[in-house]
Amino acid sequence: MSEAAFSGRFGATTATSTFFRRLTQFMSDVTETAAGPDRFELEGRPAPEALVNDVIRLLAGHRSIRSYKPDPLPEGVLEVIVTAAQSASTSSNLQTYSIVAVQDPERKRLLAELSDNAFVADAPLFLVFCADLHRLEVVARRQGYELAERGLDMFIQAVVDAALAAQNAAIAAESLGLGICYIGGIRNEVAKVAEVLQLPPRTFALVGMTVGYPARPSRVRHRLPMDVVLHHETYSDEGLEDGLRRYDELTAASGIYAGRRAASDDAKEPKLYGWCEHSARRVARRHPKRQDLRRQLEQLGWEF
Amino acid sequence: MSEAAFSGRFGATTATSTFFRRLTQFMSDVTETAAGPDRFELEGRPAPEALVNDVIRLLAGHRSIRSYKPDPLPEGVLEVIVTAAQSASTSSNLQTYSIVAVQDPERKRLLAELSDNAFVADAPLFLVFCADLHRLEVVARRQGYELAERGLDMFIQAVVDAALAAQNAAIAAESLGLGICYIGGIRNEVAKVAEVLQLPPRTFALVGMTVGYPARPSRVRHRLPMDVVLHHETYSDEGLEDGLRRYDELTAASGIYAGRRAASDDAKEPKLYGWCEHSARRVARRHPKRQDLRRQLEQLGWEF
Repeated sequence: MSEAAFSGRFGATTATSTFFRRLTQFMSDVTETAAGPDRFELEGRPAPEALVNDVIRLLAGHRSIRSYKPDPLPEGVLEVIVTAAQSASTSSNLQTYSIVAVQDPERKRLLAELSDNAFVADAPLFLVFCADLHRLEVVARRQGYELAERGLDMFIQAVVDAALAAQNAAIAAESLGLGICYIGGIRNEVAKVAEVLQLPPRTFALVGMTVGYPARPSRVRHRLPMDVVLHHETYSDEGLEDGLRRYDELTAASGIYAGRRAASDDAKEPKLYGWCEHSARRVARRHPKRQDLRRQLEQLGWEF
Repeated sequence: MSEAAFSGRFGATTATSTFFRRLTQFMSDVTETAAGPDRFELEGRPAPEALVNDVIRLLAGHRSIRSYKPDPLPEGVLEVIVTAAQSASTSSNLQTYSIVAVQDPERKRLLAELSDNAFVADAPLFLVFCADLHRLEVVARRQGYELAERGLDMFIQAVVDAALAAQNAAIAAESLGLGICYIGGIRNEVAKVAEVLQLPPRTFALVGMTVGYPARPSRVRHRLPMDVVLHHETYSDEGLEDGLRRYDELTAASGIYAGRRAASDDAKEPKLYGWCEHSARRVARRHPKRQDLRRQLEQLGWEF
């Protein structure tokens, strides 16, 4: 079929030929980072044809990418990603977040070190999503008011605003064939990171995100069975034990914990080393670098 | 062009005809709720053809929907939306969130009241995204450990996990032609909401989300100029005042504040009533129902 024939089906030629180009681009983009099944296939729950479009397939195909080609991003990609980020919902349109785009190799190396994730240095782009009440404080003063609203709820609002923007950025990047990985480790050293990024008071780096072309394909990971996460009308633990058992078997069999068992001070030897044992060990001792987080955030001007 | 001719271009007939059906479905879906320009057009920054695909157009076309048709959702939609939600990144795969799907009219009415948003009662589906450390505590005990990790950082992790899942749900719903609106008002009465949803300790309702077919189209809202939100290498306020002035003019001219000025105890009459004055007034006094949020969350088992 020629492009012209395709155009005939949809009408206007120029718009359609553009659409056709975008479509083929889109189709190759979404398969590029894929290895193995998407979440629908993984869960053995085939997607209902009428309800699953390419957007949902993209979402269901998400996998974190931790190794990147050195290739720089095409010009304009950052702005497209940030436009998508800014399009996310934001509480009362207050937009209490900022994004710092880091491309300088030395600064990336520093942030890789501070967040204990070496591959941050290899990604061509590192986005840092910051919760930001500083801008609102400037705005309030500019209009002759004081920022009275600055307790825990504003902290939550800023964190949610930043997270929603980040997730839109992730999806936009993935739709362009890029891979991403969230870097929560950016909170290991909030004071030092604030210094490196010259963050003003009442802001902090909530999550980082590496962005770049995947060097290797990666696999979608199993999640908890849906009936464990989704509740109808009211919360219920009724199916929890059964769901945990199924998930433990799946994750143990998947081999993801081979050679990377979580450290533990008083490890019991479980019958099965699956998600339950791995996660229990992780939360059974406090993260050595985050015990002090509240005090550090208070020093950065946050109130709780 | 016939569907068969289209199939010929791509190869296998059955798969392609399915794809074709999904494609046309997708095209009609993304335009259904649209009135007026998407974000690229709105900002007068035309999207670079090579970089903008239909996923990004969908993201850039987001608008909150606050009035819904009574039509129920097709069977299976909830599960597709939740599959998308579960596909979002989650810190260390700990999945510290839960989703409560509310469809019962009386429960929706109650939640509408508690969150001060009457239209919650009209949406066929109300999703409540909860930060959830309860499940991890059950898992830790199941394996013979105690939940040691439960300070501010775990609170942040749970909030971010829930927010990323929520945003994926929003995008999945919008890709199917549904409209959504985040309901932060669900935090106006966290204790009462926890009771209505029978939430266990160490969980709380972070955000609600109405989902349904839009009764009326709605418009994309202007956001802050990109150079105010996006920083390069380090945070800078250099362009802030100029950006605020431009945004104030845009928002004042757009008419969104006509008839809905924010209340203020000591309102000054600004030269221009735009985003700056509106937002400054909003944060110049504390939200009457959220001053007590930290104590309420502590009573629900959260630690900071």
